Amino acid sequence: MFAKRLRNASLQQRLVTAREAAGWIQDGMTLGLSGFTQAGDAKVVPRALVDRVKQTGEQLKVNVYTGASLGSEVDGIMAEAGIINRRLPFQAEKRMRSKINSGDIIYVDQHLSHTAEMVRAGTIDPIDIAIVEAVAITEEGYIVPTTSVGNSAIFVEHAREVIIELNLAHPLSLEGVHDIYDVGPQGKRQPIMLTEAEQRIGTQAIQVPLEKIKGIVVTEEPDTASSIVQPDEETATMAAHLIEFLRGEVKAGRLPKTLAPLQSGIGSVANAVFHGFLASEFTDLEVYSEVLQDAVFDLLDADKIRFASGCSIILSPEKGKQVYRNFEKYKDRLILRPQEISNHPEIIRRLGLIAINTALELDIYGNVNSTHVMGTNMMNGIGGSGDFARNSRLGIFVTKSIAKGGKISSIVPFVSHVDHTEHDVDVIVTEQGIADLRGLSPRERARIIIENCAHPDYRPQLRAYFEEACERGGQTPHVLEKAFSWHTRFQKEGTMLEGQTIDKATNEKEPTRV
Amino acid sequence: MFAKRLRNASLQQRLVTAREAAGWIQDGMTLGLSGFTQAGDAKVVPRALVDRVKQTGEQLKVNVYTGASLGSEVDGIMAEAGIINRRLPFQAEKRMRSKINSGDIIYVDQHLSHTAEMVRAGTIDPIDIAIVEAVAITEEGYIVPTTSVGNSAIFVEHAREVIIELNLAHPLSLEGVHDIYDVGPQGKRQPIMLTEAEQRIGTQAIQVPLEKIKGIVVTEEPDTASSIVQPDEETATMAAHLIEFLRGEVKAGRLPKTLAPLQSGIGSVANAVFHGFLASEFTDLEVYSEVLQDAVFDLLDADKIRFASGCSIILSPEKGKQVYRNFEKYKDRLILRPQEISNHPEIIRRLGLIAINTALELDIYGNVNSTHVMGTNMMNGIGGSGDFARNSRLGIFVTKSIAKGGKISSIVPFVSHVDHTEHDVDVIVTEQGIADLRGLSPRERARIIIENCAHPDYRPQLRAYFEEACERGGQTPHVLEKAFSWHTRFQKEGTMLEGQTIDKATNEKEPTRV
Repeated sequence: MFAKRLRNASLQQRLVTAREAAGWIQDGMTLGLSGFTQAGDAKVVPRALVDRVKQTGEQLKVNVYTGASLGSEVDGIMAEAGIINRRLPFQAEKRMRSKINSGDIIYVDQHLSHTAEMVRAGTIDPIDIAIVEAVAITEEGYIVPTTSVGNSAIFVEHAREVIIELNLAHPLSLEGVHDIYDVGPQGKRQPIMLTEAEQRIGTQAIQVPLEKIKGIVVTEEPDTASSIVQPDEETATMAAHLIEFLRGEVKAGRLPKTLAPLQSGIGSVANAVFHGFLASEFTDLEVYSEVLQDAVFDLLDADKIRFASGCSIILSPEKGKQVYRNFEKYKDRLILRPQEISNHPEIIRRLGLIAINTALELDIYGNVNSTHVMGTNMMNGIGGSGDFARNSRLGIFVTKSIAKGGKISSIVPFVSHVDHTEHDVDVIVTEQGIADLRGLSPRERARIIIENCAHPDYRPQLRAYFEEACERGGQTPHVLEKAFSWHTRFQKEGTMLEGQTIDKATNEKEPTRV
Repeated sequence: MFAKRLRNASLQQRLVTAREAAGWIQDGMTLGLSGFTQAGDAKVVPRALVDRVKQTGEQLKVNVYTGASLGSEVDGIMAEAGIINRRLPFQAEKRMRSKINSGDIIYVDQHLSHTAEMVRAGTIDPIDIAIVEAVAITEEGYIVPTTSVGNSAIFVEHAREVIIELNLAHPLSLEGVHDIYDVGPQGKRQPIMLTEAEQRIGTQAIQVPLEKIKGIVVTEEPDTASSIVQPDEETATMAAHLIEFLRGEVKAGRLPKTLAPLQSGIGSVANAVFHGFLASEFTDLEVYSEVLQDAVFDLLDADKIRFASGCSIILSPEKGKQVYRNFEKYKDRLILRPQEISNHPEIIRRLGLIAINTALELDIYGNVNSTHVMGTNMMNGIGGSGDFARNSRLGIFVTKSIAKGGKISSIVPFVSHVDHTEHDVDVIVTEQGIADLRGLSPRERARIIIENCAHPDYRPQLRAYFEEACERGGQTPHVLEKAFSWHTRFQKEGTMLEGQTIDKATNEKEPTRV
């Protein structure tokens, strides 16, 4: 079994325990960890580091660079243990989020295609140790990644030393699904010769000089399964709106019958909307995305999707079992790439992606907040949404029109944080309807967003704000002193609805006491 | 003379007057006009259209697509005449701005690389007539552009009919400076094989089927000269800060001695900052930008710039005379490309541009407003700044720290409009200093922006806001109810400074009466 997984005999001498490997990590170091949306993450060495710090009581802080979020409790326990100084470019863990918002962890929220450029150019602290998961190590000592590629290749290339977590829990059939390609330094770079989602341009494994491999830890621990929420009535309605819109685009001759390569953001809403294609007439679809969730595999199973390119696979426990038992059957229809390639503006623009991402809130002019609750508290991070929305053919954002049982409107006069400007937001979908904003001015956008996408309970308030703003004039009319009044009302009164105050004890609406 | 300029004899039959050509334009049509930053714009036909409407008193409205701003009064008189329904993607004219802000003209502010995609994909109204300026028409009937390429090629390709303004005022030596390349439809597109600023990948003229040319109007009117403000002490200081920063990057090994291809936005500040390279040690520089202003030609003359690629040339009267008298001597060091190529994310990212653009205001977290005065009134448009800042190696924004004699701080708690998010803003330069924001979290960014870039008069207020915000916590701390208080104070009291009220009559500061 080992010979199949560790094919370079000389490397057997570097087998160590997780504890031993964790011992090499010193205070002040910068670590580059594999892992993207809980998939293919470094697991046992970071955990052993936390154990070590708990046992010794030492003061240790490290910078942690990743692909995206880690699973296996790693983000949570590292945050709790207080060992993270600086973290980038994405996270999605409750305890880490709390430490970020209290200012205890320095979090740098980046476009997911940008981190590799910064590592390469040396504009962020250099990586001391890369810790990356492998399903196998080749005869040359090269690393075959597992369920994600993320930033692993660039971390390995630029780290001083590399620790490999050789994870036997992943099926060896993952080998061959990866396509590792390095764009090289800016200014000395050739075009990326990728013109279709299914093309291979790189190698199957991450190349690394043998001497750089400091140690290999054998593990047998599966990825954390996704806890994705299944589609509900509202997300099904959103999917129906979106599919009706795409149908119209085909009819108008603006999209071919097979549409264009699809990208979908991480999370339940985006997954549910993707699920909508199952019952649609569309076939021979292509996916060029970052994370491949349950819906993509359901659509592959149903022969709705012809080919899917991503940078990680994250599945629910049930879907995971089914997929990995028969992974061979997916292999000629799947590629996993570095996140720099899955999210590269060059490819996104060339292929003309249809990009579907989730908004936390959006405003009447179509600016989108993807990250900050009430403008201040970080949720997860911008992820790849900026890479995709800016450079895609169609930048689509989906969200339910209300949250917290109607106490929050997802559509507000002025978003409390801007991640995507009106220039990058082509279409908005809520369970209420769809707003096609292409070629519209801000005033035109406002009318259609309010009438098509806002919840009926909030439309009168939105209309009133917009009318008052229009009286003052401007390309993008606003009443600045009231722009955030919806957020401050929620903070004070527990609801964004005017003339209502939520009694927090009974959680019922009662007339305002103001 | 004519034979040299109009080389296809059969086309002589299509020579018409501007008045005749303008007569073909009907109410409700969409026009695609050449012109980028006042350069190479259609001049006499739009003007004849305005004359016609004035004379007949008819009700006529047309949609006007351009490259960027037009010169020769055209934007102004079309706005005054009330004949514009919808305008995109950029303008910079006072009367047009006024009609936009009053809501009389529907203005769609777009990334300058995006318009061509929309025309090609049919997501905006199709173009009825393209009106483009030419320095010559070839034997094949192809159009040799003048001082800009802008969107002319895509307009000509997709318009039903084409009117050519053959402008004899431009030197014929412009021929050969253009490189026309069409990327083709998304999804069927090859990589753009451009790996250096000086490469040619296209043709010297815009191809057009002979039958599509409806008429040719001969004119002899020069471009409107730029009214650029010469460098002052503050812009010279900003240039010095920027050059010192770039020197540091070279020293640290993050940039080669010849830096990386430079992009600079339109306008006096960006031009002045560019001018700073004249006295620097840098040589063999390359420019890959949209508009080439005086500074670029001064740097070419001084052999500081080796090669410049752009999509338009706009010069002051003096510099224009000098350059066009000897245009041959610049021709092997210059290329003008379609704006889709000059601003293409694929090329910007590949070459790793250093992008220098002007901010109208920015906030303590590094979000930039490039377009909206007090969040509502459109200035010019986002232009190419979004194409460049998002996809470049270094997204640099420059602005003076105060405006209106100190009554406005360019650095505020929360920008009143967001064009560029913190993720795209790497470096900020004011006359006060420079803030290198790369790899920093929002709280870290705030401290360095306030201390390095804000005007000393405003630093105490900014610090107070930031401290109060930090007490509330969050990744990006804010006091939402005070976020726009600086703007509303200015609107009420005439100044953003606390405890001051400007007596508008005397324009002097006096203690606040609040």
